[in-house]
Amino acid sequence: MPRLVMKFGGTSVADLSRIEAAAARVRREVEAGHDVIVVVSAMAGKTNELVGWVRDTSVLYDAREYDAVVASGEVVTAGLMALRLQQMGVDARSWQGWQVPVRTTSAHGAARIEEIGTEAIAARFAQGVRVAVVAGFQGISAENRVTTLGRGGSDTTAVAFAAAFDAERCDIYTDVDGIYTTDPRIEDRARKLDRIAYEEMLELASLGAKVLQTRSVELAMRYKVRLQVLSSFEDKPGTLVCDEEEIMESKVVSGVAFQRDEAKMTLISVADRPGIAAAIFGPLADAGVNVDMIVQNISEDGRTDMTFSCPVAEVPRARAALETAMAEGHINYHGLDADTDVAKVSIVGIGMRSHAGVAQKMFRALADEGVNIKVITTSEIKTSVLIDRKYLELAVQALHDAFELDKAG
Amino acid sequence: MPRLVMKFGGTSVADLSRIEAAAARVRREVEAGHDVIVVVSAMAGKTNELVGWVRDTSVLYDAREYDAVVASGEVVTAGLMALRLQQMGVDARSWQGWQVPVRTTSAHGAARIEEIGTEAIAARFAQGVRVAVVAGFQGISAENRVTTLGRGGSDTTAVAFAAAFDAERCDIYTDVDGIYTTDPRIEDRARKLDRIAYEEMLELASLGAKVLQTRSVELAMRYKVRLQVLSSFEDKPGTLVCDEEEIMESKVVSGVAFQRDEAKMTLISVADRPGIAAAIFGPLADAGVNVDMIVQNISEDGRTDMTFSCPVAEVPRARAALETAMAEGHINYHGLDADTDVAKVSIVGIGMRSHAGVAQKMFRALADEGVNIKVITTSEIKTSVLIDRKYLELAVQALHDAFELDKAG
Repeated sequence: MPRLVMKFGGTSVADLSRIEAAAARVRREVEAGHDVIVVVSAMAGKTNELVGWVRDTSVLYDAREYDAVVASGEVVTAGLMALRLQQMGVDARSWQGWQVPVRTTSAHGAARIEEIGTEAIAARFAQGVRVAVVAGFQGISAENRVTTLGRGGSDTTAVAFAAAFDAERCDIYTDVDGIYTTDPRIEDRARKLDRIAYEEMLELASLGAKVLQTRSVELAMRYKVRLQVLSSFEDKPGTLVCDEEEIMESKVVSGVAFQRDEAKMTLISVADRPGIAAAIFGPLADAGVNVDMIVQNISEDGRTDMTFSCPVAEVPRARAALETAMAEGHINYHGLDADTDVAKVSIVGIGMRSHAGVAQKMFRALADEGVNIKVITTSEIKTSVLIDRKYLELAVQALHDAFELDKAG
Repeated sequence: MPRLVMKFGGTSVADLSRIEAAAARVRREVEAGHDVIVVVSAMAGKTNELVGWVRDTSVLYDAREYDAVVASGEVVTAGLMALRLQQMGVDARSWQGWQVPVRTTSAHGAARIEEIGTEAIAARFAQGVRVAVVAGFQGISAENRVTTLGRGGSDTTAVAFAAAFDAERCDIYTDVDGIYTTDPRIEDRARKLDRIAYEEMLELASLGAKVLQTRSVELAMRYKVRLQVLSSFEDKPGTLVCDEEEIMESKVVSGVAFQRDEAKMTLISVADRPGIAAAIFGPLADAGVNVDMIVQNISEDGRTDMTFSCPVAEVPRARAALETAMAEGHINYHGLDADTDVAKVSIVGIGMRSHAGVAQKMFRALADEGVNIKVITTSEIKTSVLIDRKYLELAVQALHDAFELDKAG
């Protein structure tokens, strides 16, 4: 039988009635002839409750115990989902991570899946059990301890199962109905995309479209798992995240993404010598600063200005790391500027690869609205600019309009 | 190092502050030189929450899924307890049933422990980890599914670990401070016992002193595990349940037990023939009626009266089973009487084995108070009588007084 993976997030299994609604969707797929692997998150709020208990119990908590406690939330949902399916007449059983087994690294709290044992579940399918309900977000280490994959890890679980079981598709049920050309709260003409390429989704995910965990999209791309994002609250198709070959007619630009709380930091008049970038960004990485864009000016008299962006919240950390590096003689600069009132806006699209002038069109659209660009970076399928935060909404709307994203491909 | 098992029930780990108090007790035993196995129940209320969800999800629920869901409560407490101990500087880790492993039968919801794998935990002790925190009440079946031992099963887990690890003692922390000569709510001169023999405890447990699960006492007796019942809310010794050889000076009678809601049923003028008892009590057992005392009158003209007791709540079931057996021709009687206003009072004591006249003294004490005895049964260490329920308190007080149970042994 063709196999399908269906993943239900916390809001989609928030209580017994939501679990019942999710089970009804599973039954429909079973009746349509699928063997189904259902991956579930903890009931909404449960993971936070468990994490709160752990933090209140121990300041520097043992991540192995954290994992054992927190992974129990998904175990409960998996059992309840199996029971609800049985109650509906669907033959189902639940699987905890260690029962499958889902073998992971020992990086507790942020483990990576290394291997999924398919034998036991496949044997059940062969016996006619139509549904395997899997507790998401968890696995087992080589030391036989329970691990978790980190927040949002149930998406990764779902994609990994779809790959291991060669599933036709991996449906991610959530509280939004798909991926949009941009945030509808900013641009009310934002349009839901029917399809989007893995690469585009990755750029959008890392830019703040928090629908899918980045790691799960990477995994889907690597194993060519067709991923559908859809709503568990409505009954309509969502957005398919797939290989670009499956996308017939695509626009040059698929979406406009943004990050609101960025900061632009500039090291003024840095001594320019080989290895200076490593000397600056090494200490920042060690301090846990997520540096995004980097621009180096043309050097003059052996000195240059170095500009980078990072989240506003990380500015104090960045400043401390750089001042320490200066004091210890690793770097030398004349001044350190921090502009904490900037935002990043990006256009994303696989069509940009084969179309010239896309960035130029972006800059023109912003110029027409009087939006000044502070920093530019480009990649194969993305162009990002840093602008004053007060122009964020205006810029997003202007770009959405310029690339006609409100119109179907 | 000498080993100790410490078991904390639901009220003793009800919230994070109670878990902290329990952990402090564990630390004290570690500092006193013990390697400790801590067995924990779910936080008070959690098991009921989980059971409620299961029942609301599925009417005839799959016991395997029930077990998977409900066993998660103890997993959470075990992790939190390990974290709290670590926070106090005590090297500890948690163990789920399947990790130990605790191998059980496949009778989900009421599984029996078959074997405890001691290797992994013993290796940890050898490495200097001083505490193993074990999730009580659970195990793993031969089919690799999570099992539970049934309500109160954490006591059984604790005793089984004490036996497997040859522990010096198994301390059961609970919300009462020990075993009393009778219920202090009925007799305010009831006295806490320092020691009580396994056999006595078994008679008391099955008679309604709900401090320890019967199965755990049986297991303790079989493996000669010294069991202490004590309060987690106060700091004082409890009652030691032990081999009678450890009890130097014992009274003839150790306690007065009772069951309030009993019923006396009488089959009037039953045809008396070989196999009649089986013909009566077979159907009752099949109907799930817990028959306790049985008395058969002297036969006259080939007919006899048969009297038995059972819980009041089971009278309708008993009546239906007997009437069906009559209708189907398996038994024949002239009438069926049910007296639902009776109670059972028992005196229990290992000293009764070697002392004559104990029952006689009991009957005399009741007669002096004008309490009429309806049925009598005796065993080696127990004498029970059925009386009108309205005399229950009077009878308990009279017997407590007659055997001077308010005075230390």
